[in-house]
Amino acid sequence: MPLSAAFVQQCRVLLGNRQVISDPESLRVYECDALSAYRQVPDLVVLPDSVAQVRALLKLCNQHSIPVVARGAGTGLSGGALPVSGGIVLGLSKMNRILAVDPLNCSATLQPGVRNLAISAAAKPYGLYYAPDPSSQIACSIGGNVAENAGGVHCLKYGLTVHNVLQIKLVTLEGRLLTLGGSGLDMPGYDLLALAIGSEGLLGVVVEITVRLLPLQPQTQVLLAAFASVEQAGAAVAALIADGLTPAGLELMDNAAIRATEAFVHAGYPVNAAAILLCELDGMPEQVAADSQRAIGILQHNAAVEIRTASDEPERRRFWAGRKSAFPAVGRIASDYYCMDGTIPRKQLACVLQRISAMAEACGLSVVNVFHAGDGNLHPLILYDARIRGDFEKAEVLGGQILELCVAVGGTITGEHGVGHEKLAQMCVQFQAAELAQFHRLKRAFDPFGLLNPGKAIPTLHRCAELGHLHVHHGQLPHPELERF
Amino acid sequence: MPLSAAFVQQCRVLLGNRQVISDPESLRVYECDALSAYRQVPDLVVLPDSVAQVRALLKLCNQHSIPVVARGAGTGLSGGALPVSGGIVLGLSKMNRILAVDPLNCSATLQPGVRNLAISAAAKPYGLYYAPDPSSQIACSIGGNVAENAGGVHCLKYGLTVHNVLQIKLVTLEGRLLTLGGSGLDMPGYDLLALAIGSEGLLGVVVEITVRLLPLQPQTQVLLAAFASVEQAGAAVAALIADGLTPAGLELMDNAAIRATEAFVHAGYPVNAAAILLCELDGMPEQVAADSQRAIGILQHNAAVEIRTASDEPERRRFWAGRKSAFPAVGRIASDYYCMDGTIPRKQLACVLQRISAMAEACGLSVVNVFHAGDGNLHPLILYDARIRGDFEKAEVLGGQILELCVAVGGTITGEHGVGHEKLAQMCVQFQAAELAQFHRLKRAFDPFGLLNPGKAIPTLHRCAELGHLHVHHGQLPHPELERF
Repeated sequence: MPLSAAFVQQCRVLLGNRQVISDPESLRVYECDALSAYRQVPDLVVLPDSVAQVRALLKLCNQHSIPVVARGAGTGLSGGALPVSGGIVLGLSKMNRILAVDPLNCSATLQPGVRNLAISAAAKPYGLYYAPDPSSQIACSIGGNVAENAGGVHCLKYGLTVHNVLQIKLVTLEGRLLTLGGSGLDMPGYDLLALAIGSEGLLGVVVEITVRLLPLQPQTQVLLAAFASVEQAGAAVAALIADGLTPAGLELMDNAAIRATEAFVHAGYPVNAAAILLCELDGMPEQVAADSQRAIGILQHNAAVEIRTASDEPERRRFWAGRKSAFPAVGRIASDYYCMDGTIPRKQLACVLQRISAMAEACGLSVVNVFHAGDGNLHPLILYDARIRGDFEKAEVLGGQILELCVAVGGTITGEHGVGHEKLAQMCVQFQAAELAQFHRLKRAFDPFGLLNPGKAIPTLHRCAELGHLHVHHGQLPHPELERF
Repeated sequence: MPLSAAFVQQCRVLLGNRQVISDPESLRVYECDALSAYRQVPDLVVLPDSVAQVRALLKLCNQHSIPVVARGAGTGLSGGALPVSGGIVLGLSKMNRILAVDPLNCSATLQPGVRNLAISAAAKPYGLYYAPDPSSQIACSIGGNVAENAGGVHCLKYGLTVHNVLQIKLVTLEGRLLTLGGSGLDMPGYDLLALAIGSEGLLGVVVEITVRLLPLQPQTQVLLAAFASVEQAGAAVAALIADGLTPAGLELMDNAAIRATEAFVHAGYPVNAAAILLCELDGMPEQVAADSQRAIGILQHNAAVEIRTASDEPERRRFWAGRKSAFPAVGRIASDYYCMDGTIPRKQLACVLQRISAMAEACGLSVVNVFHAGDGNLHPLILYDARIRGDFEKAEVLGGQILELCVAVGGTITGEHGVGHEKLAQMCVQFQAAELAQFHRLKRAFDPFGLLNPGKAIPTLHRCAELGHLHVHHGQLPHPELERF
């Protein structure tokens, strides 16, 4: 159902014409996020520039029962900002001011549209930085990071977004402004801060974020280790962590990723290695030196055929250059790729990579692996050609199989990208009916009529039943009182 | 209203007579937790020994609308396990098995009644330990730690309970078993794990906990620094943290605490100092040596009049002996004391300690300070004499004033003890009506009829209005649709 003229007119009154987009050409910009395989042109885009405008807009949507999809920079990889038909997109790009940097409390207060990398840039004069660093950090916004609980290369040591946010201000559908969290160690009351982080726009709209800043580390060292098999590289990862080392980052690239990036940025990677590990250590110089020695010993003991240590900052940057350009590098060798995101126990790394390779071969597709090995956070890049009819659908099926494999070995269907539109079906594999039902109950405590980002993140029990993932007895769902979900 | 004979009989059928306590003498054991100023003899105590029994009991209570107060070891300091009239106490002391220690994944799976210290004892053969260490760790249970999000001396570096738990199993009032969290970096769906931790038994009963274990640190060093004023000690704390050091623990004791403990355990503390800091550093030997040097420099620069370094393990233990015996030591100089718990920004330490001292003097009471200074987590011990009529009430009022002072300077009314029964009134100061109303909505998503630990942790809006902390306009609460809360 199209939006009523009265509703659109009220949006224009609230925001002014320049912050309301309704012409088809401009609306098309918002038809998808970075998961461009799924598209839906929104009916209306609104671009508020203040908390008051967000509050007024949400109140209006609530009154008119209009679905609302919040959108940050549109760099999300799970379709969390995919518009819904009959609804509006609430873009937060105009709320992009850094409100405060507080070096004494090691924190920064930000509007949601501030870019991730801009936080560290603003903190640098004080010797501080913001730790979570998604690959898209030059473009992605802190509001989107909060919505998806974003991670990055360094979350092995420094945690995900949820571990680095002190406080958020959240506007509810009724237009109320809630302050969640604070600078204290522990907050009384339920932990609504952790609950809201990673809730993918289903509970409210985040309009202000206070993040923790960390002191810049005095020294950083990177080791590059090459292996004759992916299994050995996986075993070395498990051994490094089991020894009690916490590298700042620990990344694995397989041969296909090594070759693609080497051809693109000439980082000097060993192109004949089956896999390489990049292991970054940071801290005080004494600690970095001691940790490097320890790491080298463990890598040697775990069959590394070559170990290089970056001798200076330019070499360190070169070691990382390949990893950081891996996605565009893969874009050069395949017309399209689909980036999956799942997490597995580290001890399953070798076995899961073998299974993925076999599954890809069985459906005639190739997979390139470059990922956060220290966290067990996989990012298989499934190569396909969108021009070939049915090729994306094959990639989509393989992606789903990979996620289900992650669950089967004791892992999860996401590491840092969220569920969004993409992984709804796999949520039925990850969770039992009891947990899914509790998610829906909780959602209703914030949004009784399901207007906030409907159809994302949490599947209905009916959908899971249709997919065959719930046991349906005589046509009844396991919790008949929850039929409405 | 007393419990019906039919209900009690059904409990006996479910658990057997030996796990159901109803004689007045035995019930009295459960009339309070470690906040013994508040007492209520329960109508019935049930002691299930399996998940199945907990599920059946909660289902039964739900059917009969019987309030349920879960209880761990009864060491809580905010009255979270205070019984309610007409309800049962569900004690988890019989569920005290360590189900698994997994050295490869650095985790342990526990029943809720396992004692905190028993976890580290079981992990020690693998070179691992469980980090959160409340003062009561020899007695307190992991289930209670989860309910109150317990902390300890080392949570400055290693975090609270919420940062060290990977997964819990929670039984809902309807008897459903939910698995929350997991071993993965990130879980899809709402973060019900963080939500449940610290929820003080209001959302469900935790029947299994999987905690993260950390490698035992190869070296530990303790510095003891004496100061001529509490202000200088407070400034030194801020300086240490601002410099980027993260001590494993950073504790402050004022002169009254120094004298009381010295008289008790003869730790060799400088009894004329206005305050001492105990600063523990741990890690690889190289790092500990470097950090110690840095810390000594900062302490010297911040007017420490004496700095001692523990030269060996016995001396290290002696440095800690005073701190660890501070509570019983204070028990020797006062017939009763009331331990408060609040958190403030570190930069406010000196000013808040001065204010507390003045407030105590004004009402004729003494306060001893011994607390987690690195976290800004205060534990003023208010001395009183329960035999003097009205003395506890004075202490209670002073305690409330101290918590409100914490909020006024930007802090919170709890660091690690929870809200429980004790701090309900101060919740009205900590939060606005909008947040309190959202807490109640969330509660209803788990417990629509308010049977789980009723009257704890979250005050009703009416109670806040009675206390004068909510603006009531023409007799209407600010959110009239929330009147029922």
